[in-house]
Amino acid sequence: MVQSLKASVNCDMGEGFSLYSMADDAALMKTIHLANIACGFHASDFSIMDRTVLLAKENGVCVGAHPSLPDRQGFGRREMVMKPDELESCLVYQVGALRGFLSKHGVKLNHIKPHGAVYGQTARSLPLARAAVGVCKIFSTPEENIAFIGLPGTAHQEAAKELEVKFIPEWFADLDYSQEGKLIITQVHTQVTHETVRSRVNTLLKHRKITTVDGSHLPFGDDVDEVSICCHSDTPGAVEVAKLVKIVVDEHNLAAGFR
Amino acid sequence: MVQSLKASVNCDMGEGFSLYSMADDAALMKTIHLANIACGFHASDFSIMDRTVLLAKENGVCVGAHPSLPDRQGFGRREMVMKPDELESCLVYQVGALRGFLSKHGVKLNHIKPHGAVYGQTARSLPLARAAVGVCKIFSTPEENIAFIGLPGTAHQEAAKELEVKFIPEWFADLDYSQEGKLIITQVHTQVTHETVRSRVNTLLKHRKITTVDGSHLPFGDDVDEVSICCHSDTPGAVEVAKLVKIVVDEHNLAAGFR
Amino acid sequence: MVQSLKASVNCDMGEGFSLYSMADDAALMKTIHLANIACGFHASDFSIMDRTVLLAKENGVCVGAHPSLPDRQGFGRREMVMKPDELESCLVYQVGALRGFLSKHGVKLNHIKPHGAVYGQTARSLPLARAAVGVCKIFSTPEENIAFIGLPGTAHQEAAKELEVKFIPEWFADLDYSQEGKLIITQVHTQVTHETVRSRVNTLLKHRKITTVDGSHLPFGDDVDEVSICCHSDTPGAVEVAKLVKIVVDEHNLAAGFR
Amino acid sequence: MVQSLKASVNCDMGEGFSLYSMADDAALMKTIHLANIACGFHASDFSIMDRTVLLAKENGVCVGAHPSLPDRQGFGRREMVMKPDELESCLVYQVGALRGFLSKHGVKLNHIKPHGAVYGQTARSLPLARAAVGVCKIFSTPEENIAFIGLPGTAHQEAAKELEVKFIPEWFADLDYSQEGKLIITQVHTQVTHETVRSRVNTLLKHRKITTVDGSHLPFGDDVDEVSICCHSDTPGAVEVAKLVKIVVDEHNLAAGFR
Repeated sequence: MVQSLKASVNCDMGEGFSLYSMADDAALMKTIHLANIACGFHASDFSIMDRTVLLAKENGVCVGAHPSLPDRQGFGRREMVMKPDELESCLVYQVGALRGFLSKHGVKLNHIKPHGAVYGQTARSLPLARAAVGVCKIFSTPEENIAFIGLPGTAHQEAAKELEVKFIPEWFADLDYSQEGKLIITQVHTQVTHETVRSRVNTLLKHRKITTVDGSHLPFGDDVDEVSICCHSDTPGAVEVAKLVKIVVDEHNLAAGFR
Repeated sequence: MVQSLKASVNCDMGEGFSLYSMADDAALMKTIHLANIACGFHASDFSIMDRTVLLAKENGVCVGAHPSLPDRQGFGRREMVMKPDELESCLVYQVGALRGFLSKHGVKLNHIKPHGAVYGQTARSLPLARAAVGVCKIFSTPEENIAFIGLPGTAHQEAAKELEVKFIPEWFADLDYSQEGKLIITQVHTQVTHETVRSRVNTLLKHRKITTVDGSHLPFGDDVDEVSICCHSDTPGAVEVAKLVKIVVDEHNLAAGFR
Repeated sequence: MVQSLKASVNCDMGEGFSLYSMADDAALMKTIHLANIACGFHASDFSIMDRTVLLAKENGVCVGAHPSLPDRQGFGRREMVMKPDELESCLVYQVGALRGFLSKHGVKLNHIKPHGAVYGQTARSLPLARAAVGVCKIFSTPEENIAFIGLPGTAHQEAAKELEVKFIPEWFADLDYSQEGKLIITQVHTQVTHETVRSRVNTLLKHRKITTVDGSHLPFGDDVDEVSICCHSDTPGAVEVAKLVKIVVDEHNLAAGFR
Repeated sequence: MVQSLKASVNCDMGEGFSLYSMADDAALMKTIHLANIACGFHASDFSIMDRTVLLAKENGVCVGAHPSLPDRQGFGRREMVMKPDELESCLVYQVGALRGFLSKHGVKLNHIKPHGAVYGQTARSLPLARAAVGVCKIFSTPEENIAFIGLPGTAHQEAAKELEVKFIPEWFADLDYSQEGKLIITQVHTQVTHETVRSRVNTLLKHRKITTVDGSHLPFGDDVDEVSICCHSDTPGAVEVAKLVKIVVDEHNLAAGFR
């Protein structure tokens, strides 16, 4: 019998900037377990980071860092050539800045999940993945063992294994997977029906299987015992989708005896 | 008899950016006790911060944060209207970012000294000074009690007293003081003779007196027992001046029985 | 009998950034005569500027530059200390950048209206006003005589007179004026009723009088024969307010025989 | 007999930023015909651009725009993924900004030469090259026919031919060429002897041949009648090298009857 997966819901938070807002953070914060908080490079600024950390704390949501390439205009979605040591410093800066606000509010750092282009670049390149995952070690203390959230079966997982950093594989509730099990990343996120989402999540959590675009199923992470489900804040109806996923996840975790 | 002052030499470090360098950091780092390291807002970037922290560590120099207004083009020297909570977040971001590199290199944070325009703005405004000095408390831990380096007799000292943050008054070896004891800040720092510097430093350390432009003397900080002497890295002959001051200071501290 | 004022409606446009949008530019562009287009310093970026200039062209709206202090995070609303020559260069850069897109789309530059904090700073300081108004001269050619839109009775108007630059006084449909006739600038723009707006606009255009908060009237610009009415894009119901003002203005101009 | 090439010397200018300087622009400006002036994205800022345009004018040097990717920290040397229309807008913004200062000082725009990573990216990709070369057309007027300076035999030249934009092939006096005639780009520019430079330049101008690292010769641009020789400002002894090249070029042009 398949061992069921422990699950959580994560969402990118605090992605506004200056006077601009990106999503309904106050509502979304109530529907997630983990907040990936933008660190001021692709989005956010010092005032928004302060408010977002406080919002997470008030909602009892675990806080992770969501650092990016230094490309505010491109929202961190334009690939840039970076050397591993340059990328490490780029991420240390941002995670450190976020941890400043965590110090202020007495909140622990839970995980790191890279944003946008650098998520993909580190998934494909082991040297870059080592640089990114290594940042978890830099910020880990006896009290804070920082996990890395990434794409299973990629350099993310390999680097985490090598460096002995806790790896949390990520699965996307609102994106499609190809027949080969590859995530299909779209510029604009489209509507998904609640029934589809519910069915996909249940298949994942109970059977450890990904539902692909053609309706077939592929195995998910035999070597992991945990998954974090990402809900994008800019998918139409994001709050409702996240709320639904969280209900399914919470029921599942309870039934499976996960705390 | 006047109790002599314990002294240290501090210098702003890591103020290059991108391909640009500002001063001979490698040489200066050998002539100081405290390095105020730029945090990426008025100068520096994540790569330079990494190198500068390492350089300080290799030279056994204590590291402080040297945060600024968010004004890279103006080198943090253009005053900007900031509200206290906005300023606090601005500084938390930068100090946090620096502490990221300190975590990497296993170095403690020693102090915070604001840069340029915000040094002056916080010296004059108590609400802004409270915001800045309060950042020392945010980053203080049982192991790291962060001091604030600032201008004695200003809102810097008052806020530090109020908030019970250790205050280290600063005195400038390479700038003149007016007859009223006010620091005369110049756009470009001019040459000072070694004899002048030596004499001024000795007067300060042994007699707790500031030498003014007209050669008279004014009392310095009756209520402090420590002083940090700032040597600017862009004063002509900066390395030689700093070297000289450090020799005088080290002799003085030794003779006075300060560790 | 009072000579009635020729009028136009202006609105700040293209104030989004990256993936962020600020207002419904497509709808607003149909309700105005003059678009003040953000130049990439407080808002906008090169991609948005390109689209905004094209949108103005498609709607037959005259294009002006809306340059700002170099403060994206503060949306150009934090005052900064700038010297006149520094400000001149700051504005030349931005207006030049906008004119690049005007060259691409074959559109003329009509006017310059400074944004946010620098609007206020130049209204109060004659040296800064001279720097800003002087930029109109730099960009004026035999074919393009650039006007300056500013606050009547301030350094804006004085500098324009001195430098012989066409001055268009601005009046705000959605803000209140104090009993002394001073504009009351609020952080957040509040709802105004259509009746109030219609009445205020008619009073201004027919009687050259400003309606103050206490319902009394003060004379408006005896020495001008034109006014531009600003409708803020972030006032609640902005499109409806602007539409209303444009109808009143168009009727008025037609009746008064203005083209 | 081989038709000799008309030549000019070009150098990247105004690449300081804020308080930082990059090269001895005042000295270099005396040793070149064409200045490629940085536009504020990889280097420079509005104050420096103003001074650099004036310096070029005072020295009778033709001014070109030297725009870059939006990457100040990376000095425009990190490749970024950009779509052609995005790149076009990126360059229009910068060239427009520079032309603002040209308007102020009454100087014409002579050419555009992309900087750093985007120079290489546009040399390899025809769609990107079309976007960049197309910017020359946007800024060309009956009075200003803007040329494109680029790498011969690459997409630069092809796009210029397609779009009927004047193409000026560039050759590098202080870099080596491989046996296959490829430019060898190094992170740090090394010293070259004056004899080597003189010999290479003469070979190029008189025989239209490139000297490769192994001392053999390859033909240079049979289809061009002009070349611009780039001298980097950060090569050791840059001013002396540029001075030497300019003397050889001026003698050559005079002897060949070029104005």
